[in-house]
Amino acid sequence: MLTDRLISRIKELKSPIVMGLDPREDMIPKFILEEARAKYACPLQAVAEAIYQFNAQLIDAIKGIVPAVKPQIALYEQYGVPGFLTYQKTVAYAKASGLIVIGDVKRGDIASTAQSYSNAHIGRIQAAGSEHEIMKTDFITINPYMGFDSVEPYFADCETYDKGLFVLVKTSNKGSADIQDVKMANGKLLYEHVGGLVSEWGKSYIGESGYSRIGAVVGATHPEELAALRKQMPHTFFLVPGYGAQGGSGKDLKNLWTKNYGAIVNNSRGIIAAYQTEKYKCDEKDFAAAARQAVLDMKADLEAYMP
Amino acid sequence: MLTDRLISRIKELKSPIVMGLDPREDMIPKFILEEARAKYACPLQAVAEAIYQFNAQLIDAIKGIVPAVKPQIALYEQYGVPGFLTYQKTVAYAKASGLIVIGDVKRGDIASTAQSYSNAHIGRIQAAGSEHEIMKTDFITINPYMGFDSVEPYFADCETYDKGLFVLVKTSNKGSADIQDVKMANGKLLYEHVGGLVSEWGKSYIGESGYSRIGAVVGATHPEELAALRKQMPHTFFLVPGYGAQGGSGKDLKNLWTKNYGAIVNNSRGIIAAYQTEKYKCDEKDFAAAARQAVLDMKADLEAYMP
Repeated sequence: MLTDRLISRIKELKSPIVMGLDPREDMIPKFILEEARAKYACPLQAVAEAIYQFNAQLIDAIKGIVPAVKPQIALYEQYGVPGFLTYQKTVAYAKASGLIVIGDVKRGDIASTAQSYSNAHIGRIQAAGSEHEIMKTDFITINPYMGFDSVEPYFADCETYDKGLFVLVKTSNKGSADIQDVKMANGKLLYEHVGGLVSEWGKSYIGESGYSRIGAVVGATHPEELAALRKQMPHTFFLVPGYGAQGGSGKDLKNLWTKNYGAIVNNSRGIIAAYQTEKYKCDEKDFAAAARQAVLDMKADLEAYMP
Repeated sequence: MLTDRLISRIKELKSPIVMGLDPREDMIPKFILEEARAKYACPLQAVAEAIYQFNAQLIDAIKGIVPAVKPQIALYEQYGVPGFLTYQKTVAYAKASGLIVIGDVKRGDIASTAQSYSNAHIGRIQAAGSEHEIMKTDFITINPYMGFDSVEPYFADCETYDKGLFVLVKTSNKGSADIQDVKMANGKLLYEHVGGLVSEWGKSYIGESGYSRIGAVVGATHPEELAALRKQMPHTFFLVPGYGAQGGSGKDLKNLWTKNYGAIVNNSRGIIAAYQTEKYKCDEKDFAAAARQAVLDMKADLEAYMP
């Protein structure tokens, strides 16, 4: 079962880390961009190709030290069809490299529409009598604002194809307070209510590791909320964004760790653009080695605060 | 300004109706599917081509009687790259036909990612030194769960390129109650709080019609909530889903209408698949005429309950 496999892999590597693949043109080394521009006259195709080469080299560099990658689809969608192809190719390359892939798509819509998103990202689509797999991602992130019937359509595909979900509960950004921190009449905060729903929704999908394939997104930037949600949702595996560039650190996560880790922490810019930072500054040709070193340092930072 | 233009067009046509382009393979007349299959060996390409032909003929049939169309991107995304191309071509064809296009994408993410979605759908993307327009949609729908900083990045593109947003407030589905109807400590319901935020966010973007380019999604299936939100949000233009197949009728909308209409009502299946219903049953070759008649009947149903 997917969540069990993810946890096994985290334990093998002692690495509860997911590399966020949120590539921007200004993060890509010039030699990769120039090669891609020599190959494609269309600027969108050239940049999309450069992103794919960048991602592939990053995946090669970290596949032995992290269990998963998380491409953020917006970064690909903005390049149109070439970007879409790069997203598909990146997912396929990561999977062929033995990585688990979390598609960060944050979709959310009424049931009939949710089924189409499920078809696209974790299920299959029937077209003219034959069945097709479009994205091949293992997990996707989804938005719960529209309620249970907007989430339920994904469950059957999760079971049929051994896939999983991470539902937004408390996100890492400052604005998350505007709606997620609203105080309810019963004294709870809204994200606690949403956490309760996600926990309930996941009950039928718990694996041997003790965690459900219906996980939750909980930001690293709110250590107290994180600790409280960890207690409130013992069978929910957490995807934790917000480490690094967004401000979260190993210390902020000291109350996150529980049985079988129980969580995986994302870092995007801090890994993939490490070579552009003061700490890891190097020749751009060594960008992948810098990314690898950033992962190892992050691993040590997390371990320092584990029980 | 976009919202003013939309309202002018609604008034010219006396038609506050948007045709939802949510095409499924089983809605497409066989003769269109067969033609597309003769043209493309790949089933995904064939169905995507059939969807485009279906959409184009529907657009031709209704362009003189409705001001806008709303393609639901999930229905295209599920066919991968060919679906993505059909979405782009449908948007372009609708715009060339004089229609305003609402991209129903319901995206929502942290600020840097939201900017990428904005680039893709309503703004521009810089690639290798040149600027590209990917989607050409006029409005998009977005999800507010992540708060102000997840919504704000779209505002600059709205102003620069004369675009607009519809932010989810109270959706048409039953499950909307799970989170949107939560009772707050201050006595309000959550969707009223979200309505207040959207209204506040839109204040700097009000046009001559009295409405902001930052609109709201409010479902037709909750007549009382709709009436209350209408009063609470006088400067917010509403996109109203849920008419027809989802259960909403003209009578449910009698308290919706205000100065300059103030809203546009979506109908998807009830128009585009009208020829498959008992009421409009006809030869499949006449599907577009059936769609046109369904629009005219919907118009009469709405008018019957207007003040």
